[in-house]
Amino acid sequence: MTTQPATHTQTLGILGGGQLGRMLAQAALPLGIGCVFLEDSGTASEPCPAASLGKVYKTDEFAVFLEQADVFTLEFENTPLDSAQTISEQKTLYPPATALAVAQDRLKEKTTFVELGIDTVPFRAVNNQLELEQAAQELGLPLVLKTTRGGYDGKGQYVVKTEGDIAAAWQDLGNHAPLIAEGFIDFEREVSIIAVRGQDGEIKTYPLVENHHVDGILARTHAPAEDVANIDAAAIAAVSKLLNHFDYVGVLALELFVTQAGILANEIAPRVHNSGHYSIEGAMCSQFENHIRAVAGLPLGSTDCVYPSVMLNIISTHPSTADVLAVEGAHLHLYGKSERPARKLGHITLMPNNASTLPKQLAKLEALLKI
Amino acid sequence: MTTQPATHTQTLGILGGGQLGRMLAQAALPLGIGCVFLEDSGTASEPCPAASLGKVYKTDEFAVFLEQADVFTLEFENTPLDSAQTISEQKTLYPPATALAVAQDRLKEKTTFVELGIDTVPFRAVNNQLELEQAAQELGLPLVLKTTRGGYDGKGQYVVKTEGDIAAAWQDLGNHAPLIAEGFIDFEREVSIIAVRGQDGEIKTYPLVENHHVDGILARTHAPAEDVANIDAAAIAAVSKLLNHFDYVGVLALELFVTQAGILANEIAPRVHNSGHYSIEGAMCSQFENHIRAVAGLPLGSTDCVYPSVMLNIISTHPSTADVLAVEGAHLHLYGKSERPARKLGHITLMPNNASTLPKQLAKLEALLKI
Repeated sequence: MTTQPATHTQTLGILGGGQLGRMLAQAALPLGIGCVFLEDSGTASEPCPAASLGKVYKTDEFAVFLEQADVFTLEFENTPLDSAQTISEQKTLYPPATALAVAQDRLKEKTTFVELGIDTVPFRAVNNQLELEQAAQELGLPLVLKTTRGGYDGKGQYVVKTEGDIAAAWQDLGNHAPLIAEGFIDFEREVSIIAVRGQDGEIKTYPLVENHHVDGILARTHAPAEDVANIDAAAIAAVSKLLNHFDYVGVLALELFVTQAGILANEIAPRVHNSGHYSIEGAMCSQFENHIRAVAGLPLGSTDCVYPSVMLNIISTHPSTADVLAVEGAHLHLYGKSERPARKLGHITLMPNNASTLPKQLAKLEALLKI
Repeated sequence: MTTQPATHTQTLGILGGGQLGRMLAQAALPLGIGCVFLEDSGTASEPCPAASLGKVYKTDEFAVFLEQADVFTLEFENTPLDSAQTISEQKTLYPPATALAVAQDRLKEKTTFVELGIDTVPFRAVNNQLELEQAAQELGLPLVLKTTRGGYDGKGQYVVKTEGDIAAAWQDLGNHAPLIAEGFIDFEREVSIIAVRGQDGEIKTYPLVENHHVDGILARTHAPAEDVANIDAAAIAAVSKLLNHFDYVGVLALELFVTQAGILANEIAPRVHNSGHYSIEGAMCSQFENHIRAVAGLPLGSTDCVYPSVMLNIISTHPSTADVLAVEGAHLHLYGKSERPARKLGHITLMPNNASTLPKQLAKLEALLKI
């Protein structure tokens, strides 16, 4: 006696149990797919965000976790490669570990862009101070010296403004070598494109969205991005090349800089992405549902926008729930997390029925969020 | 350390743990509200539909269940009145037990319609065979003799076609007296209106929807209903009177017959309603989220339609998930229930981005569901 025909994955294992895992599980449930999670964070008084939707295993229970499902996916791009490899050998992992390996290493990532003919920021590998000096000459100054692995929100980076900064920069980051030096890009705005690829190779792309960061953290996404007619085709081509290159299954996000000359690929996220959260209400089928559909071997859903929307992250502190919901067209998504500086606690998707009222409602929400 | 400001209910107790409870809890989670349920059905191998979203208590754990929350609601209109009364005395119950008492008794229900000046089907109370004979004379034949309590999907009913049927009808149902005799209505179609009332008395109504039944079970809902300009105001007035009469908080559904002369109230459901399931995708704020907002004392959301949609119930057997999702604009909602004749197993909301394709996609789904 089954609760539904066994035509697809019935339990999905997810590496990570944060808000992305939570929203993936919320999308999976109505499709008859249950989720289990691998996540070390979380306590009895504050379980991880995904805990309300499925059993959470700790890393030291990895073998037991592995028995719970046949198909696995991830919400955490820094999933250790050896874990991903182990799963790939014994079960099925989407996206493939190769995509993960590239996403975890800035040098591999940029090199892959170049190999696939995708325009990216100018960069050089830096293994010693001499190579940093050469990079400064070839790329010009200022440049940004970065670790190839780890680091985000401005950590693990050094902005080299003058030749006099080179020694200090190497001293600061040299012990993390290999490093990557990236030329400074004078971009007009940041956009991202989210795409999904099914097990049969079908690709669907969401419309380009425009992202605004505050202190290095995504604060606001406008969906769809405006004035993208001249970059749309290039963005779709770029993300499609990446998906096919990796024989990818699931959702992948590609972040792009928009310059006078066109788009430059910045980085990929091999998972559902914060700039796609609007899609729960703002797209016909959300990035979360499409990721589930893809990894479960189901047909993909429409990536068209419903109405124009704006997604606002709730960071550090919670606004009043009642005040947020009093704003016409506001959809609140809390993650069940306690307040902490720079922590993403939830998001609001603003999608009024009448798009012309969007700026007015947006101003109300920004006041509540003190943006 | 809390996960969000304690400005509203953080745990909600729900009487019943079926699919309505499940969808209420799905709507509550992103608002930072957890749910617990009181439900006796469900086994280890097939837990009740709500079990994946919160702890389920059995009736013999009622006292413990009552300790879990300050605010309670229900998804099951046949909740015993004494339980509702107990909760009302010790905690807060929305909707109020008085609304429940009326909804559970067809005679009280119809009498309330009359008292509030809401047109309803002609009816008579029947306490003995003589009164049934009088009702037959006053209402004319055919009439439908019904138990006042319990019974649905055609059970507990007897269609009296001729005077010769009266004795047999009384013999069949008389031991369930008091009964209600309802005049036979020649209606053109069935519609329903779902409305929500907040703690501050604010009322929002969803658009009228048109319902189609098969074997007495709702099979299909069209949202919004077409050609309702001449009945819209009357329906809104009727449901608003009921909400205010009960000092109601939460979602209430009113089922209506549409006749040549206008609308006739048939029955109320003091809860979220199957004819409102389309609203998850098809309305700006779903009936589930609006019920949660109301009982939690939060501002209500927009009840406007997003695009036209059709909701199809999945009854008795499951269609292929892949086949359903291959239909453009199909949103699948499975309840985690095993197959059984006449059992509601899930629903599909069809809302294509381009409404003109709706009839074609609907035909595909109806073929899959063998409707």
